[in-house]
Amino acid sequence: MSEPRWDRLLVDATLATFAAGHPFGLVGRGALAITGDRIAWVGPADALPDAPERLAATVDRLDGALLTPGLIDCHTHLVFGGDRAREFDMRLNGASYEAIARAGGGIASTVAATRGADEAELLRQSLPRARALLRDGVTTLEIKSGYGLDLATERRMLRVARRIGQTLGIGVCTSFLGLHALPPEYRERRAEYVALVCDEMLPTLAAEGLVDAVDAFCEGIGFSREETARVFERAAALGLPVKLHAEQLSDQDGAALVAAHRGLSADHLEYLGEGGLRAMAQAGTVAVLLPGAFYALRETRLPPVEGLRAHGVPIAIATDCNPGTSPLLSLRLAANMACTLFRLTPEEALRGITVHAARALGLADRGTLAVGQRADLVAWTVGQPAELCYWTGGDLLRAVWLGGREVPLPLNPAASSPE
Amino acid sequence: MSEPRWDRLLVDATLATFAAGHPFGLVGRGALAITGDRIAWVGPADALPDAPERLAATVDRLDGALLTPGLIDCHTHLVFGGDRAREFDMRLNGASYEAIARAGGGIASTVAATRGADEAELLRQSLPRARALLRDGVTTLEIKSGYGLDLATERRMLRVARRIGQTLGIGVCTSFLGLHALPPEYRERRAEYVALVCDEMLPTLAAEGLVDAVDAFCEGIGFSREETARVFERAAALGLPVKLHAEQLSDQDGAALVAAHRGLSADHLEYLGEGGLRAMAQAGTVAVLLPGAFYALRETRLPPVEGLRAHGVPIAIATDCNPGTSPLLSLRLAANMACTLFRLTPEEALRGITVHAARALGLADRGTLAVGQRADLVAWTVGQPAELCYWTGGDLLRAVWLGGREVPLPLNPAASSPE
Ligand SMILES: [Zn+2]
Ligand SMILES: [Zn+2]
Repeated sequence: MSEPRWDRLLVDATLATFAAGHPFGLVGRGALAITGDRIAWVGPADALPDAPERLAATVDRLDGALLTPGLIDCHTHLVFGGDRAREFDMRLNGASYEAIARAGGGIASTVAATRGADEAELLRQSLPRARALLRDGVTTLEIKSGYGLDLATERRMLRVARRIGQTLGIGVCTSFLGLHALPPEYRERRAEYVALVCDEMLPTLAAEGLVDAVDAFCEGIGFSREETARVFERAAALGLPVKLHAEQLSDQDGAALVAAHRGLSADHLEYLGEGGLRAMAQAGTVAVLLPGAFYALRETRLPPVEGLRAHGVPIAIATDCNPGTSPLLSLRLAANMACTLFRLTPEEALRGITVHAARALGLADRGTLAVGQRADLVAWTVGQPAELCYWTGGDLLRAVWLGGREVPLPLNPAASSPE
Repeated sequence: MSEPRWDRLLVDATLATFAAGHPFGLVGRGALAITGDRIAWVGPADALPDAPERLAATVDRLDGALLTPGLIDCHTHLVFGGDRAREFDMRLNGASYEAIARAGGGIASTVAATRGADEAELLRQSLPRARALLRDGVTTLEIKSGYGLDLATERRMLRVARRIGQTLGIGVCTSFLGLHALPPEYRERRAEYVALVCDEMLPTLAAEGLVDAVDAFCEGIGFSREETARVFERAAALGLPVKLHAEQLSDQDGAALVAAHRGLSADHLEYLGEGGLRAMAQAGTVAVLLPGAFYALRETRLPPVEGLRAHGVPIAIATDCNPGTSPLLSLRLAANMACTLFRLTPEEALRGITVHAARALGLADRGTLAVGQRADLVAWTVGQPAELCYWTGGDLLRAVWLGGREVPLPLNPAASSPE
């Protein structure tokens, strides 16, 4: 008898491949083979060249369960110290923004808590959030800095992001977000802070291999188009891709700026206009929609979904997991919100957390079920792709493979202690 | 050495007792003792009469974790056949309600799938939903009939509800909801169906011990006030408490009707008026708010939260878990939605899924941490009560005790096969 061709073969699966062409790239009664950390074969079981047992060392039967690529969360701020539950409570008890600020609330409180946590403590607090996302099917995620706003703390955040990837075995892409907020100690020295970010923090952290992309918060209450352009130019000089928090609260023409830099993505986009749409379409910049922030802020202005469709701009969906405006710990719930609140179809929402999310991170090796792609896979307790968007909350995970290796369940954070 | 006084003692816990008087009934550095299936002692650890090890056979240290009563979901329709994911998909792809109905969608499709499933199959499909709720902290839940609309299937639904309780060891209260929809075979014989429900189904199922309470859907598209009154009178004759789907889409004066019967709860209530409010306050009828349905239907009319507060009507929150208008599998997410969408405070939302939910089910033995209450307990991975409402999605469960016995984690439904 000859050597089996593949390490592992999954059979009797309903495959949502997200190959282009037909809804969800669906393959009923499908099979998928793994060799090493890659997908070696994918297609209808009928088309397998031999009996499963003769083709692979291990054969797993999935009883018709849905199998998808591992989900990809392409916009998170999940490394931070503390939380803002007290502020959430105060606000619902009628406290004004001023009262909350006086009580030390707002982003300043997260910056203080993050600066006050050492690397071990920051990892201890942040890891359960990444584990919660993984428990819901996320196998690759992006993590931004931006609560340090000084070199040492921004570095610590990015190092913790890398360690989360190593600890859980998931993919982590880092984004440097020095231009997130003006730190309190620079309140009267805005230009100096922008120079510090561009001329010192970014080159230093990039040289340390901690920066996969560069982001900024381009907004009336954030940084101007000119300040953003400055950090983008520095990124270009360092050979780093850019992305942007754009048109969330007002139209700053940020999407056109990121498109002009052939950026990976423009994110939020509730106030995106026709010019920005056109620029993004031309540059191939992905639109990352963040319904968790829309929901938590009770925003009423919808992102221009029809315009994105009409211009053929790829749409991704992410959690925006952050302590202030989106304490969201489930990417599948973000997809449900994208359907419910933004009226995306389940197919659009699911492409948004797989293939388009991979594109928003510049990753060509994941996000679909295709030969040669990383074998990051999720089997679900449901049989149809639309159910992943339809069920709201709950636990639909059946099994997850990271680079071809099944991760033992449970992944629950029971072992972690409270803050 | 004398016999230990208690079976088990939990120490180093942050207790949210939901005792009246102060926010969350919070006790820092608390301890809680269990004997048999009951809470035997609760208070600050400082007040314990001796060293923990001398007081109980087993001592668990919770490292400061939040300990709450087991959550109570007082309004669900979680026993049903099939799902409505395809309809969800069609609607988001622009299909009209007519097209969906022609394709066999709507409640009729759930009735057909439920009628077509035998008891084992109905349990197989429904159990993972109850397990998902348990995995998120729910230790008691209400389950309604109402997708059978014939005696045999209504009985099967209620039997499955009881079996869910036995299988998982959780508390299940059943509600008979014969007046949920007019079954297709009675389309021209409305009065006959109402008579069947009142004179045959209800007395038969009650005699079989399957009915803990009686519910109805009082609405323009449901049943009239007069039809509802008829089933309520029958319930009274049988000594069964009543509750009502009231004022969800229009003001039918249903809340006043249920209050006149000293009913347990009036549920939904977006269109509740001043008269209904007053009647509920006087009768002590609980207002059950269902933000999952509000969210999924993109409702804009808010329930009169200020009025409920002003009249001192107790507010409960539930998932309304059902395949058509609220496929919600997390009670904690319902509480988050109650805060975000209805502007309840975290304290109100949490009382709404504990003490007030118990009251909505007529259960005096659970919903708070107090001596003599059932030892249905949840320890969380967070340290403050407000975090249970603040974090959106995710997995915050650390441990759960049902009647004093710790349930082994994981509770995930990986073992269940897809439908
Ligand atoms: Zn963001
Ligand atoms: Zn209902």
